Amino acid sequence: MTFFRDNIDAMTPYIPGDQPIGGEGIVKLNQNENPYPPSPAALEVLRQFDGGTLRLYPDPMAREFCRTAGEVLGVPPESILVGDGSDDIIIMIARACLAKGRSVVYPVPTFPFYFTQAQVEDAQIVAVPFNDDFSVPIDALIQAGGTVTFVANPGSPTGVAPSTDQLDYLAGKLDGLLVIDEAYVDFADQNALALADRHANVIVLRTLSKGYSLAGLRLGFGVANPSLLAGLLKTKAIYNVGVLSAAVGAAAMADQDYHNECVARIVASRSKLVGDLAGLGFEVVPSQANFVLVRPPGGNAKAVYEALKARGILVRYFKEPPLDDKLRITVGTDKQDAVLVEAMKDLL
Amino acid sequence: MTFFRDNIDAMTPYIPGDQPIGGEGIVKLNQNENPYPPSPAALEVLRQFDGGTLRLYPDPMAREFCRTAGEVLGVPPESILVGDGSDDIIIMIARACLAKGRSVVYPVPTFPFYFTQAQVEDAQIVAVPFNDDFSVPIDALIQAGGTVTFVANPGSPTGVAPSTDQLDYLAGKLDGLLVIDEAYVDFADQNALALADRHANVIVLRTLSKGYSLAGLRLGFGVANPSLLAGLLKTKAIYNVGVLSAAVGAAAMADQDYHNECVARIVASRSKLVGDLAGLGFEVVPSQANFVLVRPPGGNAKAVYEALKARGILVRYFKEPPLDDKLRITVGTDKQDAVLVEAMKDLL
Repeated sequence: MTFFRDNIDAMTPYIPGDQPIGGEGIVKLNQNENPYPPSPAALEVLRQFDGGTLRLYPDPMAREFCRTAGEVLGVPPESILVGDGSDDIIIMIARACLAKGRSVVYPVPTFPFYFTQAQVEDAQIVAVPFNDDFSVPIDALIQAGGTVTFVANPGSPTGVAPSTDQLDYLAGKLDGLLVIDEAYVDFADQNALALADRHANVIVLRTLSKGYSLAGLRLGFGVANPSLLAGLLKTKAIYNVGVLSAAVGAAAMADQDYHNECVARIVASRSKLVGDLAGLGFEVVPSQANFVLVRPPGGNAKAVYEALKARGILVRYFKEPPLDDKLRITVGTDKQDAVLVEAMKDLL
Repeated sequence: MTFFRDNIDAMTPYIPGDQPIGGEGIVKLNQNENPYPPSPAALEVLRQFDGGTLRLYPDPMAREFCRTAGEVLGVPPESILVGDGSDDIIIMIARACLAKGRSVVYPVPTFPFYFTQAQVEDAQIVAVPFNDDFSVPIDALIQAGGTVTFVANPGSPTGVAPSTDQLDYLAGKLDGLLVIDEAYVDFADQNALALADRHANVIVLRTLSKGYSLAGLRLGFGVANPSLLAGLLKTKAIYNVGVLSAAVGAAAMADQDYHNECVARIVASRSKLVGDLAGLGFEVVPSQANFVLVRPPGGNAKAVYEALKARGILVRYFKEPPLDDKLRITVGTDKQDAVLVEAMKDLL
């Protein structure tokens, strides 16, 4: 007996990456977490939080958070829709826009959640391979003409970012919705936020999980034309973001000095890590994110992944081509990265 | 230009009840919030929380929370699926089970979110009127033969609870899924949790929003056969519950002494409130929840609602029949309830 739709029964569940493992000795570079703690100002909000108020429901729209985020980003608060992580916004998009007979387009390899959501909605999936240098195949995406097109900026697990001009051109040519997923954009040279204002068919996704060190909090948002958000809102859980998340998240975003300092450190560490790995003979995809996609000399990524794991160093290995000869390594602190590089020297 | 499915375009958005209004003088009895603060043990977990760990992703399944909740409820942890509030579980059910050509059945009046979710999935909606005493029309629900049947236990906004025997019988007769939404069950004489074990087609929903005073946290869960949960899981956001929510929620559930004390106080206050309002000539629907549905003498509920609001007392008014001559009043502290009763004396 099954209660599920046929397409749900046909799905295999998504398996997340290695889960956090306790213990002092572990170097965890597998989930693109920020190696630095959240903003001290945000942690102070957490410490001072009046827990008695948790008995009350949150503001369904988290308007105070939206005001802060809007000020920081220079967008009107009514252009912001909050989510229980940016995954929640992706789910709203899927529910509002997708169905059997509608299509989802994205360049691959990419974040597998787009695929999962298309499956849940029984939509047609058009996966367009990246160009050989992992740049975005703009013309092929246009040609595919998706109901919804997902482009991660920068891409994951590639780290390669399209230019804003390219995304602007793509948005103008598409009739459907263009979702620009900027989960990793804090570490990039440019962002496409302005396109959410310029194009009625663009929504830009942001998260506090990476750049703001708040992956455990679950807070993300979409930036788009209010009329687009009004449609997505129909599919939203009424109170999708709790008061603690909204308050701590707002304080983290307001503390741009700390944010910029952490980002600068990670970008500097990324340069060093790229240089060190290249020096060991790794092929390194140029990254605009807080991770690097690398091919070890000889390409036996699985063996390297397992040998690192045995030493308590966690990185991400993907078994499907074209990634099966590569590893995705989160940029950690310089100290963590040095442990990784030393281990690589040993292994090679 | 629209990007949305036709059924989404056709929807009008759900409007939540009056939002929290600041200010000392407000008596807020409109959203069924618990008048007492969360467990001191839970607030201590919040105070002691190591904010630095927020940089890490949560366990996608919140297994520690599930272990605690499972122990408290006497169910295996693998029978528990966590949600960003129980709304999140309802969304998973809708996505996994509903589509055009499938049907949702529920007795009305009820929580409007079931209707909304059926609309989002373009499912057929069969709303079966309650019996005149707001008891559940079991045979009519069976006859309707829904893909998914929602029964709130106790009902909202009625407060009337079906017996577990009735729900057991209903579950046995239905081929489809029976969702028993126990958001308010902490205040009732019995619950249907055992049916989740007895029937493969039953999922029981619980929330920490009411009985545990954690509406602002967003934490709920479903209890069902693991094979049923495996299907719902395919539609879940990977990290739907944050680490703070899981930790604070687990501590709240572990503190059953405090929980039982708060519930006992609310149940005692409910008796007093029911007596006071009946004494003023109100018709009172017998309630098993932390609210009462009442008909003011003369039935001009809207005028009473507005007059109370002008005095800073918020209750819930529904403009659609058969509720338009009634008010839903949350049971507050004895002091809050006394303020309400005094105001009613003045108004009538």
